[in-house]
Amino acid sequence: MRALVLAFTLALLPFEPSSNQPHAASPFSPRFAADALVQPAGYDMWPLVGSSLGLSYTGRADNGPGTFHRVYMNPTAYEAFKKTGQFPEGTTFVLESYEAQAKKSIAQGGYTEGARVGVDASVKDTSRYRDGWAYFNFENGAAPTANPFPDTRCHSCHLAHGEKDSVFVQFYPNLRGR
Amino acid sequence: MRALVLAFTLALLPFEPSSNQPHAASPFSPRFAADALVQPAGYDMWPLVGSSLGLSYTGRADNGPGTFHRVYMNPTAYEAFKKTGQFPEGTTFVLESYEAQAKKSIAQGGYTEGARVGVDASVKDTSRYRDGWAYFNFENGAAPTANPFPDTRCHSCHLAHGEKDSVFVQFYPNLRGR
Repeated sequence: MRALVLAFTLALLPFEPSSNQPHAASPFSPRFAADALVQPAGYDMWPLVGSSLGLSYTGRADNGPGTFHRVYMNPTAYEAFKKTGQFPEGTTFVLESYEAQAKKSIAQGGYTEGARVGVDASVKDTSRYRDGWAYFNFENGAAPTANPFPDTRCHSCHLAHGEKDSVFVQFYPNLRGR
Repeated sequence: MRALVLAFTLALLPFEPSSNQPHAASPFSPRFAADALVQPAGYDMWPLVGSSLGLSYTGRADNGPGTFHRVYMNPTAYEAFKKTGQFPEGTTFVLESYEAQAKKSIAQGGYTEGARVGVDASVKDTSRYRDGWAYFNFENGAAPTANPFPDTRCHSCHLAHGEKDSVFVQFYPNLRGR
């Protein structure tokens, strides 16, 4: 009987602290293999914080639409940020890029998402990275792990222009104003 | 004792079938107030199935970028569809629309999401709706409930052109090919 009560209590425990939160049972922490980040799994279930089309910081020479970007955020960090306005350690963003396709199916105007052409990520870990963040490319999902980009590649621009802790929250409706 | 065993069994039931799935603790079922759909809550945590910019089925007269669309799907239905290729009863899509903004912050090309300008939803319920689906507008989030659109408004086009069960899966990378 005592064992059963214990089992019953334990069975409830993982869901008890915030059982009405959809992601309460979904901890996510970035995993590393030495200096490389293991490609985050299951991020298609993470909340989207922003999308864009053809975003460029230098202007583009071509006249095409560019690519769609989707930026996802790991749910535990997302919920923490909504409460505190701060990015906790382990915050992970995944950037997926998709071709823009016109006149698909019955579409007569605008652009929908074609083939996926990129998977990137950023991670906050102040114990590992100067200024807290590093950036990774997973070769459109083909690379199981990725080493951080050198600081000159993503970091310096994020640091200078990301409105909040190196993050471009100004582009993300779900994070703006916090 | 028998009551405790029953309580124990019931406590486990909602989480037992797929306890390692991030959304296993996130049941979602559409709620109705008579014929009106109650506005889904917490859909910012739902998986995105597709986004688009300026999508139009008739062509547009203006030369602007149009609006961004984000289409979310309730997680339980999303996981079921990934396994079975079918939309279960209670499948709910939420469509958010955002203004497209150019040259925001350091952006020199392309479009990012500005203010939100629309919240719509669709629900599959074969007991309520002919051909299974109905469509709802929540006045950019201001309406707590919404009555279904008449069939001529969304339904007839979805039925004719949605590649799978009235859903435009052809536009959604996460649902295509299933």
